[in-house]
Amino acid sequence: MNFTLEQTDPHSSARAGTITTDHGVVQTPVFMPVGTLGTVKGVFHRDLVDQAGAQIVLGNTYHLYLRPGTDLLYKAGGLHRFMNWERPILTDSGGFQVFSLEGIRKLTEEGCRFRSHIDGSSHLFTPENVIDTQRLIGADIMMAFDECPPGTAEYDYAKKSWERTARWLDRCFEQYARTECPYGYGQSLFPIVQGCTYPELRRQSAEFVRQYPADGYAIGGLAVGEPAQVMYRMIEVVNELLPADRPRYLMGVGTPVNLLEAIERGVDMFDCVMPTRNGRNGMLFTPQGVINIRNEKWRADLRPIDPEGHTFVDQAYSRAYLRHLTIAGEMLAAQIASLHNLGFYIWLMAQAREHIIAGDFAAWKAQMVGKLSKKL
Amino acid sequence: MNFTLEQTDPHSSARAGTITTDHGVVQTPVFMPVGTLGTVKGVFHRDLVDQAGAQIVLGNTYHLYLRPGTDLLYKAGGLHRFMNWERPILTDSGGFQVFSLEGIRKLTEEGCRFRSHIDGSSHLFTPENVIDTQRLIGADIMMAFDECPPGTAEYDYAKKSWERTARWLDRCFEQYARTECPYGYGQSLFPIVQGCTYPELRRQSAEFVRQYPADGYAIGGLAVGEPAQVMYRMIEVVNELLPADRPRYLMGVGTPVNLLEAIERGVDMFDCVMPTRNGRNGMLFTPQGVINIRNEKWRADLRPIDPEGHTFVDQAYSRAYLRHLTIAGEMLAAQIASLHNLGFYIWLMAQAREHIIAGDFAAWKAQMVGKLSKKL
Repeated sequence: MNFTLEQTDPHSSARAGTITTDHGVVQTPVFMPVGTLGTVKGVFHRDLVDQAGAQIVLGNTYHLYLRPGTDLLYKAGGLHRFMNWERPILTDSGGFQVFSLEGIRKLTEEGCRFRSHIDGSSHLFTPENVIDTQRLIGADIMMAFDECPPGTAEYDYAKKSWERTARWLDRCFEQYARTECPYGYGQSLFPIVQGCTYPELRRQSAEFVRQYPADGYAIGGLAVGEPAQVMYRMIEVVNELLPADRPRYLMGVGTPVNLLEAIERGVDMFDCVMPTRNGRNGMLFTPQGVINIRNEKWRADLRPIDPEGHTFVDQAYSRAYLRHLTIAGEMLAAQIASLHNLGFYIWLMAQAREHIIAGDFAAWKAQMVGKLSKKL
Repeated sequence: MNFTLEQTDPHSSARAGTITTDHGVVQTPVFMPVGTLGTVKGVFHRDLVDQAGAQIVLGNTYHLYLRPGTDLLYKAGGLHRFMNWERPILTDSGGFQVFSLEGIRKLTEEGCRFRSHIDGSSHLFTPENVIDTQRLIGADIMMAFDECPPGTAEYDYAKKSWERTARWLDRCFEQYARTECPYGYGQSLFPIVQGCTYPELRRQSAEFVRQYPADGYAIGGLAVGEPAQVMYRMIEVVNELLPADRPRYLMGVGTPVNLLEAIERGVDMFDCVMPTRNGRNGMLFTPQGVINIRNEKWRADLRPIDPEGHTFVDQAYSRAYLRHLTIAGEMLAAQIASLHNLGFYIWLMAQAREHIIAGDFAAWKAQMVGKLSKKL
């Protein structure tokens, strides 16, 4: 994997770059739709590419490990072939998921033992076997196994947690060096910066991970309950220390405004379930603000969902029709809203890129932030 | 609306024809996907046309009357515009739905008073206002208001029920004559033959309805629990009496084999929720037989869903992948299976038509019936 930094905004830390993988090119800043189980919920792959313009999707190691399982993924030739997705895939390490299994998981130096949320069976994730699993999934970008402590963690716990994650990182890179892609293409491994909301820990963490000559670096443990301003501050602290010539991935974030603020602070990659999950609940993101389609005010609004939208659903369907489907609980509502929202997020990233390259990112961003937060 | 009978099979009663409406042409035999609430569940209109090849869809008067309601449909310029569907639409009369509201409906000579399944509010459907509602929906083909008695009805009840439906039919046609399409295009009204499984009543009913110079005639009250052979016998009895120069619509039927048997007996039009409903439950219809995708045997079957299928999902996704999505309860499973099944049903009708025109329908049908019933 290769990263070319094409442009840095003269007035901020915003960057435009290109990631080249064996499954093709990703232009940054980029939003990666979340395909937990090998499917971005409610969206055909074809529409994800042709309509929403997705360049890369994310898979969840925890979920794919349980279902369909690595034996079947290996037999299929990896997740790309299993789900018929030819573009790049990034997988998380499963850390976030297993640590959220409160009450049915046990954390030790070795790793994390947990019970499956499906059948209660017992499993162990270690830094080593999480690399093995991601090798078998065949992700272009794999993530290191980390503990993601709660947003409210005390300093002492956050420090202890980060130190263990640091030791695990060593084991991840050792296992990474010992193994190779079973399908013959390149697989990168990104370490993850942790440290909760403590600038000192975030700095230690960033200084530690940059010792590894990785293809990219991730920032984890944010957007877990802390105020947005604190999150932005942590991004600033970390990005000052992360190598400028490698992509930076802010995990699991966030609203359209969060993305623009993070881009301004030097982040290149994002993933979040918000466009699909909130879409399924009737929330639509548009360049003019947010629509809650369940609201009575849209009942007889026969205008297109988003006259300037870039997916076919934006013009094909009216707000009144989408509201009707949403209220009636029809599947098609979730399909329309998911595709619309993904198209919007990806369009927003493409716009950010254009404005970074054009040199007017700051002005564009200030104007967009004002609009994006509005409730329509 | 106009019907041209193009070909009748020399060895059976199978027919190929063309229905011309103000929203375009429908080639028969035809399968009409069910779009209860203005959406064929889980399928974008675009895919319904481009992939599955749907020529016409069905809407349910009962459901559309309750949601979104005729005021909004009228404001939108009718259901075609509201749902953005440019091809023909057929609506049922709501009779079947309100009579199935056992315990919360009361049948009188005037009509049927019922409580909404959504909010318990009280409503009255009469032969007259059901025509008015279908006028406002703007269906190209409207259905007369009928009582659809249970499949197990005694002769006396079936007779009494049919006689009331006959009186209602008169009121439907009177209201039809008094009103016109609020949107300026043609709307046809089909009477419905009832009579349960009593050949004598079916004959009386067919003889009664054919007195009306309708654009087409429907056969209702079948596939409600009686053996398939009895259903086929009723179709024969009725089709001997219905005008040959008008399309015949068998309501709510059925399996692929049911459709071929009915075509052989002179039926031209079909609708059924089976392709979408059974698809959502993991049942796939193919030219080689039926697949229950939940079955363990498909777990590692990496072949395409249907190598000869005509929708993009048939080749884009493997059986193993679809099984994985189905077991995991992913929306995409329902989307794939629904589109596949609709594509198959519509392909089967197009094939039947080709073989009728080619003159070898009987041989083709015999061969298909053998395959379609197989469990793969």
